[in-house]
Amino acid sequence: MRFSAVIAGVGMTRFGRHLDEGLKALGAEAVRAALADAEITADDLQAAFVGNAAAGLVTGQECIRGQVILRGMGIGRIPVVNVENACASASTALHQACAMVSAGYYDTVLALGVEKLYHVDKRKSFAAFSGAVDVEMLAPLLEALKQGGAAAGAESGGGGAGEKRSMFMDIYAAAARAHMERWGTTVEQFAAVAAKNSLHGSLNPRAQFRDVLSVADVLAAPMIAPPLTRPMCSPIGDGAAAVVVTSERSARTRAGRAPVCVVASVLRSGWDHGADEPGTVEECARVAYEEAGIDPRDIDVVECHDASAPAELMAYESLGLCRKGEGGAFVDSGATRLGGRVPVNTSGGLLRKGHPVGATGIAQIVELTEQLQGRAGDRQVPNAKVGLAHNGGGAIGTDAAAMCVTVLTR
Amino acid sequence: MRFSAVIAGVGMTRFGRHLDEGLKALGAEAVRAALADAEITADDLQAAFVGNAAAGLVTGQECIRGQVILRGMGIGRIPVVNVENACASASTALHQACAMVSAGYYDTVLALGVEKLYHVDKRKSFAAFSGAVDVEMLAPLLEALKQGGAAAGAESGGGGAGEKRSMFMDIYAAAARAHMERWGTTVEQFAAVAAKNSLHGSLNPRAQFRDVLSVADVLAAPMIAPPLTRPMCSPIGDGAAAVVVTSERSARTRAGRAPVCVVASVLRSGWDHGADEPGTVEECARVAYEEAGIDPRDIDVVECHDASAPAELMAYESLGLCRKGEGGAFVDSGATRLGGRVPVNTSGGLLRKGHPVGATGIAQIVELTEQLQGRAGDRQVPNAKVGLAHNGGGAIGTDAAAMCVTVLTR
Repeated sequence: MRFSAVIAGVGMTRFGRHLDEGLKALGAEAVRAALADAEITADDLQAAFVGNAAAGLVTGQECIRGQVILRGMGIGRIPVVNVENACASASTALHQACAMVSAGYYDTVLALGVEKLYHVDKRKSFAAFSGAVDVEMLAPLLEALKQGGAAAGAESGGGGAGEKRSMFMDIYAAAARAHMERWGTTVEQFAAVAAKNSLHGSLNPRAQFRDVLSVADVLAAPMIAPPLTRPMCSPIGDGAAAVVVTSERSARTRAGRAPVCVVASVLRSGWDHGADEPGTVEECARVAYEEAGIDPRDIDVVECHDASAPAELMAYESLGLCRKGEGGAFVDSGATRLGGRVPVNTSGGLLRKGHPVGATGIAQIVELTEQLQGRAGDRQVPNAKVGLAHNGGGAIGTDAAAMCVTVLTR
Repeated sequence: MRFSAVIAGVGMTRFGRHLDEGLKALGAEAVRAALADAEITADDLQAAFVGNAAAGLVTGQECIRGQVILRGMGIGRIPVVNVENACASASTALHQACAMVSAGYYDTVLALGVEKLYHVDKRKSFAAFSGAVDVEMLAPLLEALKQGGAAAGAESGGGGAGEKRSMFMDIYAAAARAHMERWGTTVEQFAAVAAKNSLHGSLNPRAQFRDVLSVADVLAAPMIAPPLTRPMCSPIGDGAAAVVVTSERSARTRAGRAPVCVVASVLRSGWDHGADEPGTVEECARVAYEEAGIDPRDIDVVECHDASAPAELMAYESLGLCRKGEGGAFVDSGATRLGGRVPVNTSGGLLRKGHPVGATGIAQIVELTEQLQGRAGDRQVPNAKVGLAHNGGGAIGTDAAAMCVTVLTR
């Protein structure tokens, strides 16, 4: 599957708590920004692919989410495909958008990811996450996690006090403990990921959290699910991110900007594999590198799915940025910090930029596009030419339910 | 957008009330039937596009619906794209599947539509329909319908007594009254559509309702929203339908079977247009005929979105099967009955075969494929070569939120 789609424009809202803004307002802000960035109008769009994970449970907008958002901006008539893949909904929407453009079906399409998670009734927000596993297996899953040592009764895996946490943090905590046991990874190394991302997020005006945390700050924060303290867990958030995708033949590049191309976008679903067998991330990365004709060493900047701090550390290994078991040493080396060999999550990542789940995958593309075009401001990775996004969603069997790895080049 | 995808196999459940079967069991039954029909195994599938509209509200499975269903059958690893477009979810999934295959990305993919609407708490079933309009506009919409003369307090627009009806029947009732006023269409003509489809449905072992109704029976049934009596309204239902789509280069046709190709699949979204301007159906049909290189007179058999009886009558006109305003005379002529010039809804249509919303669009393709391959049994249209499916979903502005017209040929 060879892709040759051009990112013509990007836009996003600030991520965070937008209690007064619904899906329409958030989506419209991101779409308007992307259209302006691409120097086109809504009339130029030939189709739209819209990713969202949880509006049915949170806002009641169970169906036609994209049409409802876009009609508010006067966009109709064009094909709208509503796409869902849990936290990987947006990268799945982008995957389809790029495929349709690369195939020559369209010249100019919109890919939008949008999510509204904050609700006055927080049970609605957290119920949304429970919908990202096989709901018939939810009770046994929670029981297994409890017996595995999750901190029953811990408060908040979200961004604010007093919330119940998502059970995904129990899943991540169990994986973190297994990594520590097998590879000698330390809790300080997980905390170093969160501290690094807080530094990056402090430089990003669109980040939900902008305070800088030290490793000591991270370790001293309230425990969510051992060994995860609150800053090691991504918060609840609202937000939207959009990109305009164009074909190479119709790509017009703004003066002074390098054209950014999606050269690989690999989507896979989880399956029941052994713990030592390659999983969705390894499989997506292997195929993406092959399709893009690159090697992990060619990558200049990464946005990775740090729904929890250990998830980022383990992604270093799965993506081939370092060897298996060496994720802890890799973060310690400073390689993934701004100024390091391959900065990861320059946006602040899900931990600090925020994680409005259906928007996350495209927000990663917004950050990478700006990095490759040299307009990432204080977060700029000098002369970045190859970017990689890693976005996973839901849980099934022993893996993520959906995984998408995207490679961008300029 | 030229499509050249082959329907290699089809399968579906009986539609109806499946209180003991969930999404997994329904989906698995349809997928297994389609794989067997295509003479392939699950291992041959390279991707899956899964349409569903309402599981989040009805079953709580808000996310990763396709992965959950397919894992139950041992299918994982491949890309799964969950697609939603209200009652047009399945045809949208098929649209994506055919586009990806026609573009050469995949050789063999699954398109599945599945829906579970019956719930012990019927409010959940009906809440699902409310999610197919802009939910922020729901209250004013219901108020406008009430003032427009809808029979407030009428019971059931579904398949059983004692249910509340979907407000979509009020929308259809208003459109029916406008058609009567403008074109002199009679309630007997709407009833004739329902009676015809009951005859067709009686011949379909997979139909939810198999009793034959006369025009008098239809008129004497309980009133739902004037002038619509119960048999003029599609019922609530559960079910699943699946097709295996293959590329022309990898198509293997079973002995004695004509290969059936998707030659056009046109998806559009609603927009705010005047009542006399062409809408989504006219636009989809115009483009579909152009892409397929056919004329409405070339069509041998149609599956149309008769969510209500007047919707079918109006579709005759919008699809160009007859002239504007002549839908009533067209049904009276017998042209759309089995044995007529262009039989419509030989399956029984949504009215009688049933309407598990996210499955409907692919169930139409199942029926048309069997018709074009001469295996429709007692419902067979002799020597059918060109089939058309018309599948709409949700409401936005003055039109359907999503509309898809698909043309199949052998």
